[in-house]
Amino acid sequence: MTGTPPRMSMREFDALFESVSNWGRWGADDERGTLNYITPGNVRAAAALVRSGRSISLSLPINKVAGPDNPHPAAHYITRAHDVESAVGEPRLAMDYLGCECHGDCHTHIDALCHVSYRGRLYNGKPASSLTSQGATLQDITSYANGIVGRGVLLDIPRLRGVKWLEPGEAVTSDEIEKAEVAEGVRLQEADIFVFRTGHHRRRLELGPWNNGHDGEGKAGLHPNAMTLLHERSVAAFLPDGDGETEPSNVEGVAHPVHALQIVAMGMVCADCLNLEDLANACEEERRWEFAVVAAPLRLPRGTGSLFNPIAIL
Amino acid sequence: MTGTPPRMSMREFDALFESVSNWGRWGADDERGTLNYITPGNVRAAAALVRSGRSISLSLPINKVAGPDNPHPAAHYITRAHDVESAVGEPRLAMDYLGCECHGDCHTHIDALCHVSYRGRLYNGKPASSLTSQGATLQDITSYANGIVGRGVLLDIPRLRGVKWLEPGEAVTSDEIEKAEVAEGVRLQEADIFVFRTGHHRRRLELGPWNNGHDGEGKAGLHPNAMTLLHERSVAAFLPDGDGETEPSNVEGVAHPVHALQIVAMGMVCADCLNLEDLANACEEERRWEFAVVAAPLRLPRGTGSLFNPIAIL
Amino acid sequence: MTGTPPRMSMREFDALFESVSNWGRWGADDERGTLNYITPGNVRAAAALVRSGRSISLSLPINKVAGPDNPHPAAHYITRAHDVESAVGEPRLAMDYLGCECHGDCHTHIDALCHVSYRGRLYNGKPASSLTSQGATLQDITSYANGIVGRGVLLDIPRLRGVKWLEPGEAVTSDEIEKAEVAEGVRLQEADIFVFRTGHHRRRLELGPWNNGHDGEGKAGLHPNAMTLLHERSVAAFLPDGDGETEPSNVEGVAHPVHALQIVAMGMVCADCLNLEDLANACEEERRWEFAVVAAPLRLPRGTGSLFNPIAIL
Amino acid sequence: MTGTPPRMSMREFDALFESVSNWGRWGADDERGTLNYITPGNVRAAAALVRSGRSISLSLPINKVAGPDNPHPAAHYITRAHDVESAVGEPRLAMDYLGCECHGDCHTHIDALCHVSYRGRLYNGKPASSLTSQGATLQDITSYANGIVGRGVLLDIPRLRGVKWLEPGEAVTSDEIEKAEVAEGVRLQEADIFVFRTGHHRRRLELGPWNNGHDGEGKAGLHPNAMTLLHERSVAAFLPDGDGETEPSNVEGVAHPVHALQIVAMGMVCADCLNLEDLANACEEERRWEFAVVAAPLRLPRGTGSLFNPIAIL
Repeated sequence: MTGTPPRMSMREFDALFESVSNWGRWGADDERGTLNYITPGNVRAAAALVRSGRSISLSLPINKVAGPDNPHPAAHYITRAHDVESAVGEPRLAMDYLGCECHGDCHTHIDALCHVSYRGRLYNGKPASSLTSQGATLQDITSYANGIVGRGVLLDIPRLRGVKWLEPGEAVTSDEIEKAEVAEGVRLQEADIFVFRTGHHRRRLELGPWNNGHDGEGKAGLHPNAMTLLHERSVAAFLPDGDGETEPSNVEGVAHPVHALQIVAMGMVCADCLNLEDLANACEEERRWEFAVVAAPLRLPRGTGSLFNPIAIL
Repeated sequence: MTGTPPRMSMREFDALFESVSNWGRWGADDERGTLNYITPGNVRAAAALVRSGRSISLSLPINKVAGPDNPHPAAHYITRAHDVESAVGEPRLAMDYLGCECHGDCHTHIDALCHVSYRGRLYNGKPASSLTSQGATLQDITSYANGIVGRGVLLDIPRLRGVKWLEPGEAVTSDEIEKAEVAEGVRLQEADIFVFRTGHHRRRLELGPWNNGHDGEGKAGLHPNAMTLLHERSVAAFLPDGDGETEPSNVEGVAHPVHALQIVAMGMVCADCLNLEDLANACEEERRWEFAVVAAPLRLPRGTGSLFNPIAIL
Repeated sequence: MTGTPPRMSMREFDALFESVSNWGRWGADDERGTLNYITPGNVRAAAALVRSGRSISLSLPINKVAGPDNPHPAAHYITRAHDVESAVGEPRLAMDYLGCECHGDCHTHIDALCHVSYRGRLYNGKPASSLTSQGATLQDITSYANGIVGRGVLLDIPRLRGVKWLEPGEAVTSDEIEKAEVAEGVRLQEADIFVFRTGHHRRRLELGPWNNGHDGEGKAGLHPNAMTLLHERSVAAFLPDGDGETEPSNVEGVAHPVHALQIVAMGMVCADCLNLEDLANACEEERRWEFAVVAAPLRLPRGTGSLFNPIAIL
Repeated sequence: MTGTPPRMSMREFDALFESVSNWGRWGADDERGTLNYITPGNVRAAAALVRSGRSISLSLPINKVAGPDNPHPAAHYITRAHDVESAVGEPRLAMDYLGCECHGDCHTHIDALCHVSYRGRLYNGKPASSLTSQGATLQDITSYANGIVGRGVLLDIPRLRGVKWLEPGEAVTSDEIEKAEVAEGVRLQEADIFVFRTGHHRRRLELGPWNNGHDGEGKAGLHPNAMTLLHERSVAAFLPDGDGETEPSNVEGVAHPVHALQIVAMGMVCADCLNLEDLANACEEERRWEFAVVAAPLRLPRGTGSLFNPIAIL
């Protein structure tokens, strides 16, 4: 089933880019992209999925230790402990400071649409130069300020394959997505939040961190041809446990083809580096792979992304 | 109705502290405090409140500009724009860095139980010295990692009073909370998330920022005697638009009495500096002041708190 | 003597820019600018000025408190106190973290040549776009890594005028520089480090901080016409107690004319926000206004500037 | 000559600590320690050593890349490039931000006396608890604000041994220091700045970085018994290319014996991680190993240390 993933030329890639493009679909100045798929009815339907009443974090712990997949560890400092008397008496208040790269490989985060440019263009054809040293003037992360709320569907590829995790370089195609749907008895539909598990973090927990980038050992992810399926199904958001990319890339001369397609062409709400271990176990226990998801970035004006802690409610 | 709020002596305060204490209630090593009130049934009931399908951020935009209520502005830097060619070709990825004090007065955030100590003790009687320069070893913010999900009830005090906002120094007592319940036709119940509006941010929007601390002009908040009501009602969480405190304090010799009572005595899930303007308008439009709330801190080990973006779903 | 400083048109400014330009003087790829004036002989001569053997800091304390002239206060955190046992036993090591904007108005710092561009050009005509979101690829602060060592000459303008400090908006012209030379019995010569005192920080110490920028009350500094004198004298470096600029600007349509002339046209080593109070007192005591100066930026690759602590040795 | 360095028991260490202690020597509240050795006459004498007029940085470039000896890479961000029009017209000013752990293993820095405690005590017997989460209340880095100016003496141990560098774990004893003095024709005297080269950074340049800490491969440094010599000679300051320690430690149960002796017992001005490659070459060329040194920390109130760029002037 897995075999060697098919290679794609840059010309094929560009044709695929055109075929899944949503540029202009929701207006020339739209900044919400596939979030437009989610209607109030979808939100109500998602709420109706809450049955067992369990809520589960889909975030990794914030990682403060440099390592092969964490070149910019988070900086976390206690700025006030309980060791100093307050000028105004009791109680005492302890404080801390957190500093972090918003797109750290090891940090669960959500991407703004302005995060990715392809050949000088952002989603909807806007110029990449609209993002300056002072931040994004278009398509910043506040486009998602009111949260992403909808039906989540977990497609658990290692479960389908009967393995603990996918190995670096393995690519999940449209066919395999459909097989996973059948195996779990669910189907990705319009406005769904696609939660995509490759077992990336289970591998990390068992084998330790590795350099999963283009200059390292790589990682498992989607094959670019899966974008056609996501486009046809009108998927609203994508929450993977890696970053969705297969590394090394399956496209000649294009380093992060999935990001380029999802974010630039489709305007899709995308996150990276989720922790799907607890969720996968819960779904297995409850024998269902759909649930409500509520996720919200920090409300960071001009930001290209945000750490976040998405919550699944079963 | 408002009058001069009654002053409280430190002795009365200490008696109140004892009377609302939950120390030991959920075990000697409990770190979830009033979050224990929320059962799966409460989560299901909260989900059932979703009707119009609107989701609304309760967070302020992250504030990067120093001011009288923002002594530690957030640091937000573009660490990579689209102006540099990637070593690996297209697409290009823009990045940014966010650094922030987790308890900034101007930043919507949630407090860990370890954030506050009273006379050397944290919630449940644990020693304040358990929080060192290396962070919290007990009661850090990851206790709330799986999110706070439940029924939110907005009590809108300016609406009750027929004013735009409460003025600094004004205190809301138990009586007034009950009057607001009557006016809105809701009642705080076990496991509820109490969303408390004083109009703090509407005042800020209209008059500009002011120093609202103990060394400044002060702010409106709860009167300490309201804790008895919150305790009796078994409220699970508290989301105010200021920080819940009345400044200057109504207790002789105690600077932040509400924090001491809520967090140290009761173990209550507490947040600060919410943006309740959009929510208040939505509740008014829909003529109901109850809704689902989903909120989650960043998953920060050893942290005393976290910026967050709580979402109300109506 | 002070009167109204003469206004300059943008056309006059551009002519002045041309007349003091050092572009090409030390080669098309030179990155040291006026530091080229300093020869080993100048260093020996500077060392020979050491008589009393006093060394004096020319730096302000790093300022961690936001204020009207400190919008980006330094972030200073104790990252390890002596409160935690080391895994490896005694001794214990306390640590801290410092984060700071390199060009903060309130922080003594040195500018790299890449710090300033005029009409798209850096010093020597290099393109401003050579500085990207990844830092300076030309003319970064490491050009000064081996230090600025030479003869310092303090011209103390408040002393000349018999006032405590110059008031915001007052400009020091060539004429007044020459009068100060006569009054002190010194003369700026080739390779000198010009230490320029307006009393900026004495005013701050006595009256408190003020917004001294273009959108505030302004500050005292050089008149642009003084650049001709600095150019003719072949001054190597400029260490002022403000930032050298008169605010509001004396040039129509040019916001920071002194920076543009000194850094872009002349390639001059320039610093900002020195603390000259101790030095001025020492010079008065010793009745001489020349001394050795040793100053070095942090060795920050790609940096546009650096906090530093220049030392005068009398 | 090198052999196995002699091991020392904790009892021997404590006796050594007593024998080199300067507690009380310069008063109960002294915060300058061995800097007290340097008189104005020493400064004049140092200036008189300037002959060739070369100035040389003793600092490494600031290191922004995580690695085995750089767990907390410096954070360097361009906060404004020349890509945005200024509200006030030309010129444009580029800015950056630097954040760094002050004691990073890979960053040339100076230690405040408060940096090290031994059994609850700082230098001069002051309590380690005087350093709180709010910073040092005693013995902070501003004690050195006016700079360290004096005669530097480079003892180049690899030159003495005829090797490129010392290997991790090798310790330099008093005997070897005296041999190096003879070989170079210099002698450490009262008030000298001892510049100590093990070739640490030459090894790093040639072999790449390694974990040189107690949990790694270790590093070359002084043997604790060399402290007696430094004490008898009244050395004022210590500038090594590693951090002065031999790792693993030669003292049973004491992790950083050289730091404890130098800083806590002796109150010595100590730095870490200097770059002595250029200096060693220059000394070889000029056939002399003495020169002037001027070094100054950033003026950081309450700080435990500071990045710095010490300058040697030959």
